[in-house]
Amino acid sequence: MFERLDLVAERYAQLQTEGCALIEQCDGKEFFTKDRWNKKIGSGITRVLSDGEKIAKGALNFSRVTGDLNEGMSEALGVKAGKYAATGISTIFHGRNPFVPTIHMNVRYFAFDNGVEWFGGGIDLTPVYIDTSQAAAFHLQLKQVCDKYHPDFYPEFKSWADDYFFLKHRHETRGVGGIFFDRQQPGTDLDFDRWMEFTTELARLYPLIYSELVNSNADKPYSERESEWQKIRWGRYAEFNLVYDRGTKFGLESGGNAESILISLPPDVKWHYKFQVENGSREAQTQKLLKKGIDWIGMG
Amino acid sequence: MFERLDLVAERYAQLQTEGCALIEQCDGKEFFTKDRWNKKIGSGITRVLSDGEKIAKGALNFSRVTGDLNEGMSEALGVKAGKYAATGISTIFHGRNPFVPTIHMNVRYFAFDNGVEWFGGGIDLTPVYIDTSQAAAFHLQLKQVCDKYHPDFYPEFKSWADDYFFLKHRHETRGVGGIFFDRQQPGTDLDFDRWMEFTTELARLYPLIYSELVNSNADKPYSERESEWQKIRWGRYAEFNLVYDRGTKFGLESGGNAESILISLPPDVKWHYKFQVENGSREAQTQKLLKKGIDWIGMG
Repeated sequence: MFERLDLVAERYAQLQTEGCALIEQCDGKEFFTKDRWNKKIGSGITRVLSDGEKIAKGALNFSRVTGDLNEGMSEALGVKAGKYAATGISTIFHGRNPFVPTIHMNVRYFAFDNGVEWFGGGIDLTPVYIDTSQAAAFHLQLKQVCDKYHPDFYPEFKSWADDYFFLKHRHETRGVGGIFFDRQQPGTDLDFDRWMEFTTELARLYPLIYSELVNSNADKPYSERESEWQKIRWGRYAEFNLVYDRGTKFGLESGGNAESILISLPPDVKWHYKFQVENGSREAQTQKLLKKGIDWIGMG
Repeated sequence: MFERLDLVAERYAQLQTEGCALIEQCDGKEFFTKDRWNKKIGSGITRVLSDGEKIAKGALNFSRVTGDLNEGMSEALGVKAGKYAATGISTIFHGRNPFVPTIHMNVRYFAFDNGVEWFGGGIDLTPVYIDTSQAAAFHLQLKQVCDKYHPDFYPEFKSWADDYFFLKHRHETRGVGGIFFDRQQPGTDLDFDRWMEFTTELARLYPLIYSELVNSNADKPYSERESEWQKIRWGRYAEFNLVYDRGTKFGLESGGNAESILISLPPDVKWHYKFQVENGSREAQTQKLLKKGIDWIGMG
């Protein structure tokens, strides 16, 4: 059972090492911690970077778990099976400067005792202030990778991200989206090796995209106003992760390492009652763009 | 259908007015806003007090809703029925001084089209720093009200609160607990009038308890260290409300007013990776007491 788990886990662990090295270079000051954890359900390596020069808080985590599916997990996954195995890397970085967007990436592999295997993943970008040309460049980079594997991937996975990274109760998207895909069974669009290649390429693209965004934005001047807006937007990020994010739910339900799972939460958050953006302000411009279905590439 | 909804809603609306007046007196500076909302599902009055002298942020909300039970709501309520009606008041206050505990109270009435009616409610206290004699006094006040209605209420509802206000993923309680009860059908322990009286008495007790706690603690000196711990504990509060709280889930699922529902979130939150309390510190003493099954009254 779970014959190919080792293969994927080994690859993802290596991508964690590579990614951390690149992100450390990008920050230029702080280094990642390296906490190995072992629990009944499996093991993982949590790598956290806090209080960096450019990065306020973030992590690039690897885990590999197996176990029985309980009811909450079945529901979070939308599958009925007895035992499961999963491995993945999952990462989020929150910048110090409010003009550095928050970025998230996850690639994952699931296998179930009924023989079903899945790949899933996604990358999405959550700017505190949306810069449409940066959003366009981001989407174009994702499209270029997607197009190498399947012509339908970018449009399909872009629209999936719009639906997934959405705060229903706020009627707003988390940010400018990106791509999201789940439950992709090897043998349908791609075979196992190509799915692994696709997720590998996404995991390798991620630190490059992020370094570019940090380089372009981390030295922009800002004041208390932008910091305040950052904390408000980070509040929405926390709402999304705690209310909707399936990875977070699955992790907490499966008895995963709470500190590793919740490392995705922003460092500093404010919740005001009925915060109102000023008409015509940069904050209002960002607010207006938190919508599904925007053709970001066309806006670039 | 829903013959007694008006009666309960009228009472609860009146309790909102009374409670706000007392809490304003307690703060001594700020007043509550009064936002009436009307949506397809019903209406409510959101009353928020922000940036007070003693109170950092809080609200005392009234709502009255009806609608069809969708799947998420059925699950949040644990009931299968077609239409429902509900009314309740719900309130949380976060103090400015870290020695003022966060307090929460909710009383609610549900009616379903299958003829079932429920009362539910609860009061719980979440100190940033636990003061055992204040926790004992708090529990004693709750016990005294409970005992007037049924000898089993306090022990049963106290233990229910321990289970309900619990962060499973942190293996810790939200605070020192209190009482919690749900799905209490008129006719079993008490008749309809007595249930309404019981919830009324709890709603009237709440501002008195809170004013006492504010008076005793709001002038205690504190430094950056206590403020930092306050933000960390408020982070746990946000985790509880967004991940576990059934009222929040039900509200968001039923398409309620997001700003009114999420007013429960603390004003200012920090999430550090693996925050460690110092051995023997006041923070460590509080951490140790975040457990189920403590006989608070016996500790007073």
